Amino acid sequence: MAPEESWEVNGTSTTPSTAEKLLVHHKENHFTAGEVVRDVILGVSDGLTVPFALAAGLSGANAPSSLILTAGLAEVAAGAISMGLGGYLAAKSEADHYMRELKREQEEIVTVPDIEAAEIGEILAQYGLEPHEYSPVVNALRNNPQAWLDFMMKFELGLEKPDPKRALQSALTIALSYVVGGLVPLLPYVFIPIAQKAMLTSIGVTLAALLFFGYVKGQFTGNYPLSSAVQTAFIGALASVAAYAMAKLVQST
Amino acid sequence: MAPEESWEVNGTSTTPSTAEKLLVHHKENHFTAGEVVRDVILGVSDGLTVPFALAAGLSGANAPSSLILTAGLAEVAAGAISMGLGGYLAAKSEADHYMRELKREQEEIVTVPDIEAAEIGEILAQYGLEPHEYSPVVNALRNNPQAWLDFMMKFELGLEKPDPKRALQSALTIALSYVVGGLVPLLPYVFIPIAQKAMLTSIGVTLAALLFFGYVKGQFTGNYPLSSAVQTAFIGALASVAAYAMAKLVQST
Repeated sequence: MAPEESWEVNGTSTTPSTAEKLLVHHKENHFTAGEVVRDVILGVSDGLTVPFALAAGLSGANAPSSLILTAGLAEVAAGAISMGLGGYLAAKSEADHYMRELKREQEEIVTVPDIEAAEIGEILAQYGLEPHEYSPVVNALRNNPQAWLDFMMKFELGLEKPDPKRALQSALTIALSYVVGGLVPLLPYVFIPIAQKAMLTSIGVTLAALLFFGYVKGQFTGNYPLSSAVQTAFIGALASVAAYAMAKLVQST
Repeated sequence: MAPEESWEVNGTSTTPSTAEKLLVHHKENHFTAGEVVRDVILGVSDGLTVPFALAAGLSGANAPSSLILTAGLAEVAAGAISMGLGGYLAAKSEADHYMRELKREQEEIVTVPDIEAAEIGEILAQYGLEPHEYSPVVNALRNNPQAWLDFMMKFELGLEKPDPKRALQSALTIALSYVVGGLVPLLPYVFIPIAQKAMLTSIGVTLAALLFFGYVKGQFTGNYPLSSAVQTAFIGALASVAAYAMAKLVQST
């Protein structure tokens, strides 16, 4: 869900060399470990929230622990597949889409080079550049078809070259993380047969987990960690209140 | 979940004028209606999948329709809030992040202009451009701080200026769409008290809805609609099989 976000080091940047700065700032330098971490945070946050809320809601409807576990674990299984497989297929579609756009740009560069060259000009003109200022760039690109293609993919279409292995890795990471996240609020119901008691423990551990993950998420996305922690916990709390209220409402009809 | 995707007209492009082509291709020309549609597709697809799977799973565990409705509607309430509020807060954080990065770039342009100017060069050098080819661009940008700032935000950091109203609109759209999507598989359980019978109707209407929405999603994202329809329905089917199996498993312990 969270789109591309850049890295910060403790919320500020030092004054490094140009190369260092580019290394920190440049979005293209994806650290694979960082993307795995992001997927874990995404999956666990979602897994913590809805299974927790569902379990709390059913406790409110006086369901026994066994039923809460049935519903909760079924939801975790469904949610993990929906997120994991859904994410994988979406990433594959994106990769296919990228390849189709790449082919089209390649063709256009060969068949209608003047139009494509004019497009470079249009892109740079948006930054107040005059033709005499950008025409050296246009000419250089015209003589370097590979670079020209890369330039159009990035600056005209805004498309990044996807990594085929990442789609599968990302899907598996998110799905597994969702399962781990979902187990946190549900495990109390395994060990505590009286649902209302289990719910109290579930609330306790889940809120703690939400605060922790929200904090970590904030650090990695460059947002204020405390604020992120509170927001993450608040979403979980509100979702469970809504589930609780809905369950009570349906039970009363 | 689905990142930025570009528009196609019936899967191919005609050979239009340069301006038209830029209009169709350029990611910056977001049509607001298109973004609303995308949010609807996102919310409904998710809403169709997990509530459906949960209901099917609980039917498999021989739960009565009333309980399936309780769990299903509680999940829809929790899921809508998790997606809606979660999405809204994520968008707000992104907007805050953008403003912080904007301020930082602004400062850097003022305090360390030579480093920033060198960065423009580094970005363009990646496309095989020589200093004598890109220095007119660098000089022009140095004399136009606003354009320089825009250029760095887009080409160095890859950040788009977020629209503040969109965050709220997007969240509400996704949440409402999730509710609508979730109601489709659950309504049969309102009218058909015998869960196993209701489940058959639920499977029928939900599969039809998944195929339809998958098809529409394919058209809007520029992927093959039939393929998209089958994939969307497949995810729903697999998620419900997993939920069903999990529910049976938990019930048997």
